[in-house]
Order: sequence, then C-alpha cells, then structure tokens
Amino acid sequence: MKLDLPRYTERFGATSLHGVQRVYELDSGFDDGRPVSESIVNIGNNQIVDIEGRMAIVIPTKGERLRLLEGVLSGIPHDCLTIIISNSPRQPVDRYKLEKEALQQFNRFVGRNAFILHQRDPVLSEVLRDVGYNSILGPDGMVRTGKAEGMLIGMLLAKMAGKEYVGFIDADNYVPGAVNEYVKIFASGIAMSQTPYIMVRISWIYKPKISETGLYFSKWGRVSETTNQHLNSLVSYYTGFETEVMRTGNSGEHCMSLKLAELLTYSSGYAIEPYEIVNILEEFGGIIPTVNQDAMDKGVEIMQVETRNPHFHEDKGDDHLKEMVVGSLGSIYHSKICPPKVREKILEALRSKNMLEESQQQEPPAPHKIDPFKDIDVRQLAKVLSKASTYAQ
Amino acid sequence: MKLDLPRYTERFGATSLHGVQRVYELDSGFDDGRPVSESIVNIGNNQIVDIEGRMAIVIPTKGERLRLLEGVLSGIPHDCLTIIISNSPRQPVDRYKLEKEALQQFNRFVGRNAFILHQRDPVLSEVLRDVGYNSILGPDGMVRTGKAEGMLIGMLLAKMAGKEYVGFIDADNYVPGAVNEYVKIFASGIAMSQTPYIMVRISWIYKPKISETGLYFSKWGRVSETTNQHLNSLVSYYTGFETEVMRTGNSGEHCMSLKLAELLTYSSGYAIEPYEIVNILEEFGGIIPTVNQDAMDKGVEIMQVETRNPHFHEDKGDDHLKEMVVGSLGSIYHSKICPPKVREKILEALRSKNMLEESQQQEPPAPHKIDPFKDIDVRQLAKVLSKASTYAQ
Repeated sequence: MKLDLPRYTERFGATSLHGVQRVYELDSGFDDGRPVSESIVNIGNNQIVDIEGRMAIVIPTKGERLRLLEGVLSGIPHDCLTIIISNSPRQPVDRYKLEKEALQQFNRFVGRNAFILHQRDPVLSEVLRDVGYNSILGPDGMVRTGKAEGMLIGMLLAKMAGKEYVGFIDADNYVPGAVNEYVKIFASGIAMSQTPYIMVRISWIYKPKISETGLYFSKWGRVSETTNQHLNSLVSYYTGFETEVMRTGNSGEHCMSLKLAELLTYSSGYAIEPYEIVNILEEFGGIIPTVNQDAMDKGVEIMQVETRNPHFHEDKGDDHLKEMVVGSLGSIYHSKICPPKVREKILEALRSKNMLEESQQQEPPAPHKIDPFKDIDVRQLAKVLSKASTYAQ
Repeated sequence: MKLDLPRYTERFGATSLHGVQRVYELDSGFDDGRPVSESIVNIGNNQIVDIEGRMAIVIPTKGERLRLLEGVLSGIPHDCLTIIISNSPRQPVDRYKLEKEALQQFNRFVGRNAFILHQRDPVLSEVLRDVGYNSILGPDGMVRTGKAEGMLIGMLLAKMAGKEYVGFIDADNYVPGAVNEYVKIFASGIAMSQTPYIMVRISWIYKPKISETGLYFSKWGRVSETTNQHLNSLVSYYTGFETEVMRTGNSGEHCMSLKLAELLTYSSGYAIEPYEIVNILEEFGGIIPTVNQDAMDKGVEIMQVETRNPHFHEDKGDDHLKEMVVGSLGSIYHSKICPPKVREKILEALRSKNMLEESQQQEPPAPHKIDPFKDIDVRQLAKVLSKASTYAQ
C-alpha cells in the first residue's frame, strides 16, 4: 500500500493527532527498498502480512444480513484472527445460530481462525462477574446490549488470543474490497507509527447516497460533521489555534494497539468512537495527570487515513441519528477536560437541532463509562470462554 | 486469493470451457504450502505479484469522469503495466489532455509505469497503415472509434512492452477495491491454468441497481442474459447436452495470455466480448480446421470467476442496449459454426424483442472483423509509438 506520511499534526500533550492521510495505491507490490518520495511511504506486502498476523479483527453484529457478513469475512486478510461478537436476536429465529453456521461454512472452505461469541451468553456474563469487570454489566448482572460492550468483549478475546492489535469493522458493508482496504490501512498505519500506543481511524473518501437520479457521492455523514466540529473545538481551546484536524470522530472502522486499547476508558452506546479520542486527550493530553507514564514517555499517535473505496453500506434510516448526535456530543460535554465555552457551544448546537428531550434541556445525558481492561485477568477468561465461544476450524 | 478449482467443464474440441468458480478470500496471505482441499486452491501473494509483473492492464476510456479513472488506477496493483487507450473527445474541452495530466499526477506519486495513447492519434493510424494492419482502420484510413479497436491497440502496446498477459478493465468503476480483485482473479486464473492459451473472464456476484427503496442486488444484466443463452445454445448444439456453462458472454473485465490473444479474430463494436468466445470455438473447437496447431496441442482454457465485490458502475442508461444485444447476437448468428437451428432462435429472439430495424428483418447485421495481430511487426510500431504515446514516469 502506498500512502501519505503524516503531513500535519496537532500535538496535545503526549498525543499526536495527525491530519488525514491519503492512499495512492491499494497494492504497491513488494517493497523494493526504493524510497517513493519524502511525503509518501510504500508499505510492502510482506510488512503488511506480518502485522496482519498479529492483528485481530472484531466484527460487532446485530442481525445484519448474513450475505453481508459473509462478504465482510471474505474481505478480511487470511492471516488476521476474525472475532465476531453477535448481539443478534435469538428468537423467533435464532440468528446467532445462523451466523455461527455461516462462519463455520466459510472457515471450512478457507481454513481461517475465527471466534464467534454471543454478547449475552450467560457463561460470558458469569466469568466477567467473576473477574470483577462490573462496568460492562447491566443491573441484571448480564453484559449490556450496546455495540460498545460488544467491542470490549472483542478486545478481551483479542488480548486473550495474544494479539498485539485489534481492528473493528462493521458487518453492514456491501463491498468486501473496502473491508480489505481497511485492514491494509490499519496495518500500514501501524507500520508507520513511532510508538507502541497507536490508533488508526478510517476516513471515507465518499459515502454514496442513493437519490432518484442515481448515486450522489457525499463526503460526510450528518452525525460525523457535528461530532468532528466539537472535537476540533475542544482541541482548539487548548492549543489556541483553530483546527480541522479531526475528521473521524464517529469512525466505526478503526484499530488500536492492545497496549493503548487496554488503558482507555470507554463510553457505552453510540459515543464509543468519539469518546476514544476524548479519553486519549484526557489521559495523554497533559492536562490532567495519568498513571500511565510509559505511554506519556513514548507518546500516543492517532492517524486518520482516507480510503480509496467509497463506503457503500446498509442505510439504517434516521432512527438513530438523534441518539448518535446526543451520545457523541454528550461524551465531549461531560469530559473532565471540556471547558465551559465548548460546553455552551454543544448545548447550543443540540438545542438548535431540537435534539434534546424535555428533561435534558439543561445538559445532555452523561454516557455510561466502561473501565480500562488492563487489569482484567484474561487467563481466567480464557479458561471459561473456550467452552462458550465457538472456535471455528 | 483463495478460490475454486474448476469443478465443471464443457470440452469443445481443444477448448475447455470451465463453469463459474467462486472466490473465498480476497487475500489468502502467503502460500504456506498446505493444501486447502481438493476443490479449493490458494494462490499465494508471491505468485500473484509475479504474474502481475508480466501483465498489462488496458483501460479503454471514452470521456469517463476523471475521478472514476483515478479510482481505477489506484486499484490496479503496482507491478502491472497500465495502458490507457482513450477515445475521449478533444473538443470543446480536450478531455484526453486532462486524462494525461491525471495519469501523470498519479504516477508522480506512485512511481508506476503507464502508457496513455489516444485511439485517433494520427501517428498511430499512420504506423498501423505502414505495418499493414488495415482491418482496424476505417474508410478514412484512421483507426475506427469503437471500444474493440481501443482494446486491440492496448493489446499491441502490451505485446510491444514484452508482456505475457493482457487484462481489460472498464474505466467507469466506482470501487477501486473491485478493480484490485479483478486483477487478482486474472492472476489466480493464470496461475491455475494448464495451458499457455488462457482466458479468464469476470462474472459479477451482483450488479446493484438503484431503486427508490434503495439498492437492489440483481444478478444479471439484461444483455448478458440473452447473450449467454445463445452462446450456450451454440455449445449445446455440438455437445448434444444442454448447458448453462457460459455466464460471462458480455464481460468487459477479462484477461488473456498474449499467446492466445494474438491468434484471435475480433469483432468490432459491442460484440467484441461474446465474439471472443465464438472465435475460440471456431478456431479451437475442432469443427473447422485451424492453422494454430500448437494451441490445439496444448489446449485453450476459458475460466469464469465470480467476484466477491458487487459491480457498482456508472449507469449509462438504455441507449446502447439494443445495439449491444443486436451486436452480440449478430456475432453468434454470423459465425461459420452457427447451425441453422441456433440462427433461427436468435432471429426469433431479436424479432420478439423488436430489436431489428426494417432492413434487418431477414438477419441481424454482420459485425465488422479485425484480423489477428500475430504477424504485425510490433518493433516497427514501438519505434513510432514511443513518440506518440505518453509514457508517464
């Protein structure tokens, strides 16, 4: 893969927020050692495959069409460990069973390693209670149903499997080739990084909308635009310089080193993706003290890479739009480092868009938080989970 | 890439027509030497890159949007030689100039080898007259304007550049990842083949149509269905067994070894793709004698591989539909090996669809033919063309 080196960086304490980097070639062949130029880097296939072998790809799914899930599976490079965390309904049709069968069928053909696990599996909840990971559990003692919780379980499984990196890919993607590109971008970002504490986020070149006259290649989703604007305000407030650096606030497709992932506090619900950024700034922005001195010393990098493939995905309608905006902005609003000025702006934006319920007029609801999983004993998890999850192949 | 071995084959003289093969993994990593199963083959990245280095990809273009062309370029693996044959208008805006600039900009960044040449370049026509390749020229002594003629020029350039394989990819593809898959399929098919006379054709898993309610993933285009049906009738007539083996009659995305390509007679206009099949059956079907004994001895293989990526492309409307059907079926109708029974069926189909003009009621027009380029002196071409074409980078 041939892509930009970071050209523009906002530094925020120990955190480097790199501006969007472009991809030039999906497949740049093998690295012949020739430098391309001062600004473009060539990550050879050998290097990419090596990193893929140390990476788990987590696919959170909730009743997605099986045909799409199969397509996504076919796009994930062979050497990655695939982990499907399902929150699909089990009645009246046991969708999870169908997903398991589809995965097993796929793996029979390709001989790949893969896990599938239902988020509400009682054994899973039990072992999480045993190891004391209570912040992921609901009042009923079961893992909560959100996508964030699914992602966390995926990360625990990735750590359990001894992987160094974990990437997330949504199951509603129409284009297996785009999935393939995401993973190559993850690997290329990791190859470029200067620190073991790395996050790579996908920025879509286009998000085509279906209109009467055909396809319209729009650049931004409505939620992303609002989220990015306020994340940028937060950064600007501290640096004193206006910035547009943040372009991937709501990016579901992203990856992290487990070294970074296990240190973060997560937000439940739709705020998980933007709050990852906020929490990195909280922890490693130098504004409030942290216990993670090693990351402070080595630095944290956030890369944003723009795909070549447009993002053709299932249109879920506007039902969750409000929830996503309120959740995303709420997670910024309630941050310990969010200054009053940015809070005002957020409140104004939410009110002007009529996003807030009667009871929320004073402030958006605070997101539920999930603790870092650094100290969770994954060996104990492993013992129990090897029974609950289906280890295909 | 992990894909089916041919499971079902129609043998027609020295020609093996393989049934559609499926792709399981876009990226199967490096070949670890482990056999996958009896029916699935793993073509490792090393093997694919090696073949790509011996392959030219020809992109015929006619005023396609530059953004799409750039996307297609980014999807072609680095090690392929890219050849753009343009038939774009040069007035009022010189689109060819814009295409040249786009290609040069792209190549500056990626350091790839690429040619671009305008099909109506006077120098090109002159040298083709000099070497006596008259069947590609119109009455005015210039190269005719069809896509077929563009493809032929691409093949000549590929041969001139010493490549062993030539693949064709249309410039109107929205998804660079799909382009990448096509080339990997070409290389995988070649790797699997048992003969140096090989053709690999792309079958799309879906061709999404835009409807009011969103995307509808249809399987077949209207033209393809008709073309395939009559190609299959032709095969069935000789074998005595009904067949549905042929699924890619109108596939613009396909590749050939130059050893095969240079032996074929081509049809001008929209019939080029189906007539490739017909001509292979004419030449190597054992029905009429051939001068190409080596291909008869070693055999000719036609593979058809179904993509994982859906085919999102520019919707050109129905303008050319009629022309495509009449051209495609006409090329079968007028074949020396087309039996009267199949001719009747074709005529019936065309009449019932109201596809024939008043003057064509007795039979569809015969396609213009372009001679094999086996004996064209490419060294002489090379000398002149190196001046006319832009060799980017």
